[in-house]
Amino acid sequence: MPYKAISDIGEFGLIERISKLVQPTLAGKPALVKGIGDDCAVYRLSETTMQVATTDLLAEQVHFDLLFSPLRHLGSKCISVNVSDICAMNALPSYAMVSLAVPSSFSVGMIEELYTGMSQAASEYGLAIAGGDTSHSRSGLVVTVSMTGEVSAERITMRSGAQPGDLICVTGTLGGAAAGLKVLMREKHIMLEHISDNEPYSNSIIADLEEYRNAIRHQLLPAARIDIVKFFHERNIVPSAMIDVSDGIGSDLRHICASSGTGAIILESRIPVNPQAREIADELQEDVITWSLAGGEDYELLFTLPPESACSIEDRRDIAVIGEITEKETGILLTDIYGMTINLSDLAGYDHFRR
Amino acid sequence: MPYKAISDIGEFGLIERISKLVQPTLAGKPALVKGIGDDCAVYRLSETTMQVATTDLLAEQVHFDLLFSPLRHLGSKCISVNVSDICAMNALPSYAMVSLAVPSSFSVGMIEELYTGMSQAASEYGLAIAGGDTSHSRSGLVVTVSMTGEVSAERITMRSGAQPGDLICVTGTLGGAAAGLKVLMREKHIMLEHISDNEPYSNSIIADLEEYRNAIRHQLLPAARIDIVKFFHERNIVPSAMIDVSDGIGSDLRHICASSGTGAIILESRIPVNPQAREIADELQEDVITWSLAGGEDYELLFTLPPESACSIEDRRDIAVIGEITEKETGILLTDIYGMTINLSDLAGYDHFRR
Repeated sequence: MPYKAISDIGEFGLIERISKLVQPTLAGKPALVKGIGDDCAVYRLSETTMQVATTDLLAEQVHFDLLFSPLRHLGSKCISVNVSDICAMNALPSYAMVSLAVPSSFSVGMIEELYTGMSQAASEYGLAIAGGDTSHSRSGLVVTVSMTGEVSAERITMRSGAQPGDLICVTGTLGGAAAGLKVLMREKHIMLEHISDNEPYSNSIIADLEEYRNAIRHQLLPAARIDIVKFFHERNIVPSAMIDVSDGIGSDLRHICASSGTGAIILESRIPVNPQAREIADELQEDVITWSLAGGEDYELLFTLPPESACSIEDRRDIAVIGEITEKETGILLTDIYGMTINLSDLAGYDHFRR
Repeated sequence: MPYKAISDIGEFGLIERISKLVQPTLAGKPALVKGIGDDCAVYRLSETTMQVATTDLLAEQVHFDLLFSPLRHLGSKCISVNVSDICAMNALPSYAMVSLAVPSSFSVGMIEELYTGMSQAASEYGLAIAGGDTSHSRSGLVVTVSMTGEVSAERITMRSGAQPGDLICVTGTLGGAAAGLKVLMREKHIMLEHISDNEPYSNSIIADLEEYRNAIRHQLLPAARIDIVKFFHERNIVPSAMIDVSDGIGSDLRHICASSGTGAIILESRIPVNPQAREIADELQEDVITWSLAGGEDYELLFTLPPESACSIEDRRDIAVIGEITEKETGILLTDIYGMTINLSDLAGYDHFRR
């Protein structure tokens, strides 16, 4: 077979090919409502209840760096990123399974730290860690979590339900996780330079990272917005479409528009930029809007609401209305603070196979 | 914290510690019937239906060697080892999620081969591949599959139900997968030696592996015994305990006895040794009984049956009765072909953290 590099087709091109290959396996499963192509797979458990399922693999040196990720934080993050996918379906998490590939350099105490973080996060989300698989790794640590959740059939929210005229909303603030990573990477390079130059890397040199605490927390210890899902359930709000912000709202909004067959317009002035991310971007002379649109890992929820539901979120200060769903022909547009219109269709989000 | 190597406590010691750490997460989950400690986690979906869930991670150079594992076979195996865990609960598989960490050396065609194997196997088992996660790996290929299955509440079979007097049964033949691996490893070393000695490794030197076909097939392309589960359901047979043979029947029988609070005695003469494994063991001057007891990866089913159910399996030539469950005090014993009794409690199965 002729060689075609994965980078030629990118992560989403690869997912498309995989979808085609697994299509024949879906034939005998009428209960399967949604396979590949949303934050979770969805299948009907009963007339009234849907089960959703997701999985996320985190590999050392790709998704995390143990030089600056405490194992307890990492454990928590492995759970939170999966809970975030469950929340994106307007569902609540039920059970998790954890697969570990552990390097031989790891001690029992290190695994206990990792599991303590997972267990604490799971308890906070009301999720049970029901099982797993533990084996040896010849290279770095790999943690794969798979998770199921449940939601009533009338509340299930997919990427595909957005309609022209719907409001585009996002929770929390954006860009914090990307800013935190920049600070941590800078500190890592300073340390490695000192070591390679044989210079002491003592407390007097180590930057005081306390002032970056909020951004670093967003990077190392993100929280899934299960509070938003509970709020939706209490208020009987069912978004028309939803996705979690893992690749940056530029890319994630494109997924909603592609699944819903719509366009969108968002206003730069409405994007809830993380204040500390703004300070860090100024310090590093980088663009905080790029971090907010394409930085990823914020694990906030991006959702659309019919305009008549706008009043139901009015009292939430942590939900921003940033734009509106439009007809497909309009494309996906950003109006910047000077009133200029930028086409977001070309802005790349995080892609694992294009670097 | 003081350093304790994982090899000091072994895989099962580690699982015990992990079980304690996740215990608090199980508190609010009355529907969870079984967490860590069986082939699958089990939770009640409704009064009549149980859902089971499992996960298995396969990492390059630990679980497979791409030098002699065709990617299509590997894909199939990743599915089969999980289906085998589902079968061990007397359940049938429903949905799978697949997480991949892919090295940058991989082409699109290689991933398609892997998924073709997964998809074909899934179709044969009546299983849908419903979703997954694809990302980059800095080292080797890692494939994590998680899977759910279903079974009616009265059929669910765990490791813990064996009673003294129950027959111990095993499906198929044992030792084939271990024998196949030995042959493949031998051929690999011959090839690497030729390469390092700068000698040609041509067709005239390559061993004809056709005669080892059956054993190699057991290693590279194992099949989960879903046919046995379907047979149980048709005949209304519910084993008192069951486990899949992934670590070798010595170790797997210990798990049944530990969970059930029993002992066991098995007869060497009754162990259904794979005939080709016997030939290969003779050729390599190794002990085929050790491969059968501790070789692992056979993915057959080891189960116990009340003696009054013996007649229900009489006509199955691929189920062997190899012994009997005893009181706990008796220990776990093997009577060899000379009538000598050997204590199996000390025989090690495959342990990922003791080498």
